[in-house]
Amino acid sequence: MFEMERIIRTALTEDIGSGDVTTMATIPVGTMARAELVAKEDFILAGLDVARRTFLMLDPSLSFEGLRSDGDRIKRGEVIAWIKGEASTLLQGERVALNFLQRMSGIATLTSRFVAAVSGTQAMIVDTRKTIPGLRLLDKYSVRMGGGSNHRHSLYDGVLIKENHVAAAGGISAAIQRARTQIPHTLKIEIETRNLDEVREAMAAGADIIMLDNMDLETMCRAVEVVAGKALTEASGGVNLETVTAIAETGVNLISIGALTHSVKAADISMLFQ
Amino acid sequence: MFEMERIIRTALTEDIGSGDVTTMATIPVGTMARAELVAKEDFILAGLDVARRTFLMLDPSLSFEGLRSDGDRIKRGEVIAWIKGEASTLLQGERVALNFLQRMSGIATLTSRFVAAVSGTQAMIVDTRKTIPGLRLLDKYSVRMGGGSNHRHSLYDGVLIKENHVAAAGGISAAIQRARTQIPHTLKIEIETRNLDEVREAMAAGADIIMLDNMDLETMCRAVEVVAGKALTEASGGVNLETVTAIAETGVNLISIGALTHSVKAADISMLFQ
Amino acid sequence: MFEMERIIRTALTEDIGSGDVTTMATIPVGTMARAELVAKEDFILAGLDVARRTFLMLDPSLSFEGLRSDGDRIKRGEVIAWIKGEASTLLQGERVALNFLQRMSGIATLTSRFVAAVSGTQAMIVDTRKTIPGLRLLDKYSVRMGGGSNHRHSLYDGVLIKENHVAAAGGISAAIQRARTQIPHTLKIEIETRNLDEVREAMAAGADIIMLDNMDLETMCRAVEVVAGKALTEASGGVNLETVTAIAETGVNLISIGALTHSVKAADISMLFQ
Amino acid sequence: MFEMERIIRTALTEDIGSGDVTTMATIPVGTMARAELVAKEDFILAGLDVARRTFLMLDPSLSFEGLRSDGDRIKRGEVIAWIKGEASTLLQGERVALNFLQRMSGIATLTSRFVAAVSGTQAMIVDTRKTIPGLRLLDKYSVRMGGGSNHRHSLYDGVLIKENHVAAAGGISAAIQRARTQIPHTLKIEIETRNLDEVREAMAAGADIIMLDNMDLETMCRAVEVVAGKALTEASGGVNLETVTAIAETGVNLISIGALTHSVKAADISMLFQ
Amino acid sequence: MFEMERIIRTALTEDIGSGDVTTMATIPVGTMARAELVAKEDFILAGLDVARRTFLMLDPSLSFEGLRSDGDRIKRGEVIAWIKGEASTLLQGERVALNFLQRMSGIATLTSRFVAAVSGTQAMIVDTRKTIPGLRLLDKYSVRMGGGSNHRHSLYDGVLIKENHVAAAGGISAAIQRARTQIPHTLKIEIETRNLDEVREAMAAGADIIMLDNMDLETMCRAVEVVAGKALTEASGGVNLETVTAIAETGVNLISIGALTHSVKAADISMLFQ
Amino acid sequence: MFEMERIIRTALTEDIGSGDVTTMATIPVGTMARAELVAKEDFILAGLDVARRTFLMLDPSLSFEGLRSDGDRIKRGEVIAWIKGEASTLLQGERVALNFLQRMSGIATLTSRFVAAVSGTQAMIVDTRKTIPGLRLLDKYSVRMGGGSNHRHSLYDGVLIKENHVAAAGGISAAIQRARTQIPHTLKIEIETRNLDEVREAMAAGADIIMLDNMDLETMCRAVEVVAGKALTEASGGVNLETVTAIAETGVNLISIGALTHSVKAADISMLFQ
Repeated sequence: MFEMERIIRTALTEDIGSGDVTTMATIPVGTMARAELVAKEDFILAGLDVARRTFLMLDPSLSFEGLRSDGDRIKRGEVIAWIKGEASTLLQGERVALNFLQRMSGIATLTSRFVAAVSGTQAMIVDTRKTIPGLRLLDKYSVRMGGGSNHRHSLYDGVLIKENHVAAAGGISAAIQRARTQIPHTLKIEIETRNLDEVREAMAAGADIIMLDNMDLETMCRAVEVVAGKALTEASGGVNLETVTAIAETGVNLISIGALTHSVKAADISMLFQ
Repeated sequence: MFEMERIIRTALTEDIGSGDVTTMATIPVGTMARAELVAKEDFILAGLDVARRTFLMLDPSLSFEGLRSDGDRIKRGEVIAWIKGEASTLLQGERVALNFLQRMSGIATLTSRFVAAVSGTQAMIVDTRKTIPGLRLLDKYSVRMGGGSNHRHSLYDGVLIKENHVAAAGGISAAIQRARTQIPHTLKIEIETRNLDEVREAMAAGADIIMLDNMDLETMCRAVEVVAGKALTEASGGVNLETVTAIAETGVNLISIGALTHSVKAADISMLFQ
Repeated sequence: MFEMERIIRTALTEDIGSGDVTTMATIPVGTMARAELVAKEDFILAGLDVARRTFLMLDPSLSFEGLRSDGDRIKRGEVIAWIKGEASTLLQGERVALNFLQRMSGIATLTSRFVAAVSGTQAMIVDTRKTIPGLRLLDKYSVRMGGGSNHRHSLYDGVLIKENHVAAAGGISAAIQRARTQIPHTLKIEIETRNLDEVREAMAAGADIIMLDNMDLETMCRAVEVVAGKALTEASGGVNLETVTAIAETGVNLISIGALTHSVKAADISMLFQ
Repeated sequence: MFEMERIIRTALTEDIGSGDVTTMATIPVGTMARAELVAKEDFILAGLDVARRTFLMLDPSLSFEGLRSDGDRIKRGEVIAWIKGEASTLLQGERVALNFLQRMSGIATLTSRFVAAVSGTQAMIVDTRKTIPGLRLLDKYSVRMGGGSNHRHSLYDGVLIKENHVAAAGGISAAIQRARTQIPHTLKIEIETRNLDEVREAMAAGADIIMLDNMDLETMCRAVEVVAGKALTEASGGVNLETVTAIAETGVNLISIGALTHSVKAADISMLFQ
Repeated sequence: MFEMERIIRTALTEDIGSGDVTTMATIPVGTMARAELVAKEDFILAGLDVARRTFLMLDPSLSFEGLRSDGDRIKRGEVIAWIKGEASTLLQGERVALNFLQRMSGIATLTSRFVAAVSGTQAMIVDTRKTIPGLRLLDKYSVRMGGGSNHRHSLYDGVLIKENHVAAAGGISAAIQRARTQIPHTLKIEIETRNLDEVREAMAAGADIIMLDNMDLETMCRAVEVVAGKALTEASGGVNLETVTAIAETGVNLISIGALTHSVKAADISMLFQ
Repeated sequence: MFEMERIIRTALTEDIGSGDVTTMATIPVGTMARAELVAKEDFILAGLDVARRTFLMLDPSLSFEGLRSDGDRIKRGEVIAWIKGEASTLLQGERVALNFLQRMSGIATLTSRFVAAVSGTQAMIVDTRKTIPGLRLLDKYSVRMGGGSNHRHSLYDGVLIKENHVAAAGGISAAIQRARTQIPHTLKIEIETRNLDEVREAMAAGADIIMLDNMDLETMCRAVEVVAGKALTEASGGVNLETVTAIAETGVNLISIGALTHSVKAADISMLFQ
């Protein structure tokens, strides 16, 4: 909550700074306006509340009426929200609100495509920490709105032992052992594996989640058999809309995809004044 | 300078928070490591100094050696930088540094494609305010590294009179007039026009920059003739890699493109431990 | 907006800190009071909204009724505003609110004297960056309330090439050339000149604004002739109430005066309890 | 210390913001420069360390050599300090450093005039809370550099019972009584009085400091006799360079003057590049 | 006021961070709840307003009804307050609100025991600067709610000359002399003494408060006689519930006790949902 | 890391504020001093690095030599660290550094007593969220230094379903079910149970950790049998040094104790100047 406030305040400060010289010069004080947020293409909506808060942070007396909800499938031409207030406030908040809304809806839309591609399997689409610095809360929220699930938020709420941790700790078993005794008992232990031997060693050491890193489909299938439901399996690496269905069909529980948040096409949304 | 520090500090705080539980549990204090940043595809580099500062903010005694410079064309497989220090610091800074570097290089690379597409014309590729909230400084820097130029940074360092300002002010001439007397004299006045009549009225009122908004190529050509070099012309709307060359050949001075910063594919860069 | 909030919050924190020991010890909770802000001399009002926000930041339920507006000419003895609320809040906000109001009205009053002294000429009185660190937004606003105009706000919203920039860039033409290709196209280019040769070189290089730095009146007149309306001219240096009229009569467009904000006599305003 | 850092950081952020476009465009990276701070008139120096910290906050590797010390009497033409470093850093820090130095030296100089005017008496010149919002630490330091003393810093480190506190508490004795039992025992109790009856009542109630508010000289003399050295006396109201000597000769211990910090003429100081 | 807001905001940010995963997963949006704060043992209440603000900072529309007041003696089983609002908000604020309330009431309760132990003497129980870093405002407030008084808040609102200050200044007289001329005249001067000779020297030098540091009861009695009511006396060191009555009976004015805030047992308070 | 910096900076700002008037008045600039931190009783050390950073934040050129390490058992009279630098800096940092060190060592010492009391069993002593607002990072670190383990840090890195979550979700199974699908897969699910039926239902629903809340020893024994090592068990409620051994002997995996951080006696540590 405070984090979202920080994000919006930072964005408005960045854009307005010492003042919107155009609006101050051209819009008489007291000029009221009404505007609508309109979809210029089809997408999954995410960020409507962020847009609302952006305008209200500029002027709490402004009125913002959302017509659709986050997670909704929006058609080109649909009106998403009405905004009414001082014309100067609407003009000053417009760009920031749209920047949030377009990116967040872009993430939700991309995620929904991956989710659709694995429907019928048990695999869940999850995000990564490859998010925009400072916007992770919004990026991960948008993934959920698109039907995906969240991996750990940050370094503090999940253990993910990678190759370098293994090397420093002296092997997979040693690394898992050390983690078991050092971390809060509320966290599971996930470990990155690259082949079936590593999968077996990780299982023996009691890992809770097995990441299958850049494995080919066949190896992935056999890894799922080795794990045999005694831990969660997560496919990672080289996932795109062409490959994701086949990966899901190997039986993995989770498929993590960096592109959900690092390579996003903004949804096309406009603010039109009446 | 303080802004870049704020951005990096926010990103590290977001990712590390109450602590990197994996690294704390598995990496013995004092374990040193050396890693390299490696290109996994071709791109234009941007953000190397941001990556460097990210690691140094975690540990000023760490050593970071950049091998290439921002703006350089990087080939797949090239090593961009060496980093040496506590293994735990390298692991904690890795994701944040890469998140910056991959996005910034992605922007520079996309920009460079547009710049290449207009080479031989006089048109300059410029960005917009459609940047990631909170990262505008880095987004606009990356555009320059890709060979583009910057439009105004924010609402305070440029006047851009849009349709709604015109409506509230009572017409194009009135809006320009008001702006002329209200703004610092160090700022030019840009105005959005949608047809030749508006271009003529804006020129008559003494606009410094004429934005040609969503005009077809023929109208744009004639607008450039009307302006006749007495103001700058800026094409805006519907610009992509297919259309940009023809737009540039109309003779406009500037072509502004939101996609440079709102729809970016991250460059593929890895950090490899030795 | 956020900047004004920051300024007021900083001031209240500075003055109240760990608590107003006098008020806490002597004023029973629930004691209500009514007070008026009264002019103790003639002045131009500026800062009434800042005063209002100061009290409301301490207690949003307090009532503040402004009787006059910023920019108004106030006569000694006039009541500017009424304030009603907890006596302790009024006492805690009094000094900070007056400190803002007295300085801001002092700036507006001084500015209005310069503006009066150039009436009948085309010259505009503009401020500089010689403001109180941290209060520039308020200082520049007060200049406008006194009838003056604003020069660039800070280093980011105007180009002003001074002697040292010229030296480093390799001459006036080179400096203007470099600026032209590096800066956002929304900014004009101003350059400092000290004699007619420099004025001519600057005009040839296409400067948008020519600063006439510490020139005598005759040189200034000739500089205005050289420029011939093809750029703006700004007189700078050694301006005071004795010299400003003659300077304005040379035909310069702008006269910039550091003293408007760096050497201000506070307007005499009191808060009287009923 | 942290407060001074906050003040300087705020000032630099205000002035540089998203970047110094002039310097970035015209000064090649690596251009070194040397500059001196020079007095353009006589004054008492204050703020040299603040100026130094301003430049070092921009670049800790820059060299700043102070030639004089705060509190020194400076003659027109004297060089106060040498600065050496990147030309761009010097240009970016120049205005902020001078804004601090000119105001602070202005305060010290004004204070020293009042101090000189009361020499030969026992009266000390003290400041008030009529300082620039956010700069109190520097304002009060500058008063000391001019030979003055500091009144309480803020509402938390001194008790000053004014007319309205007295009214709310039910009389002078009651107010002093309440204060005695509520405040930390480390603070003295000062009370504002307007006539000899109030002085007598305050003395009877055990006040530590008696403020003589806007009294004529004769009443002030008699008040000093009434107090008879059993408390400190402080003259307040209507003090200027014409009246201060006579006030001091009444035998008061302290004379507080708001103008020391609310109506200051900046000292004339320049930064000259070599 | 801003300080209390900072403290609460920091605490909520610390506890909620990127989100309360349990509540988000299990409590449907719109689920309302009502809860009561209940005493699980006897104590003196302190912190009810802090608890209220904690919940309201999460949701200003929530209702919080305090049934008792700070300073009240609470019996086991009593209900202190009712809270009504979104169940998720109540659950998210619960721990932070209780952490404040339990510590603050713990301090008030401990203080009240010391106050009771010295009843019938003139001694006042005062706190020290041995508070929890960052919570001093609340710690000192809680002491007052328990019937104690506050020593100086921090280093800025009281002079306390200790052994090391004396050594550096060149003796007790010299230290007091220097302090007298350097500090705001609104502050008293307290000095630490270890024997009767030092007490006599401090009195001769005009100290306002004499700290009797770790003296035995007999020496303390004689020190009180030496001071003879011409300064305040403060006993310090080795004070506990067994020794405090005898110390008070020596006739000292103040007894300062670090344990009031550095060694506190939290009061047992629960939040029960209806 | 940034969090620790924030904590220390807040504490120093709180204590020093507008300045240490005593030290400024009595200690000549340039006076150097050497001091030692000395144990006045036996304890387990925690916080030495925090103390070091406290002094270095005031003056990075100061020298701080730690002689012992966090987690060490310290004997009364032992010297823990040497500090050398400006006397004024040592005096200004003294209280804050000791406030941290004494509380942190107090926590470590108390924890170590509980750890000793369960030695020979498999039970681990863990903390809770009943920490001092704003100091959780340090409180939890100190628990580890005393030989304890950490429960979840905050609401974001562990799922703990309590009675009210169960009620709102519609039963134990429903609550666990909902959590399973909503939370990041890296988190375990802990649930509070009050009797054996609830334990059985939680096990059936697949809980990872079973909290045994305020159960008597016999019930706890049987609960451990029911769980049979298929989940972790955590005893909670009514734990003190008298009861902890018997609780541990029931075979529970974890014993959580709020008093470790909410009811701490500060370790007695002094700073002695040489």
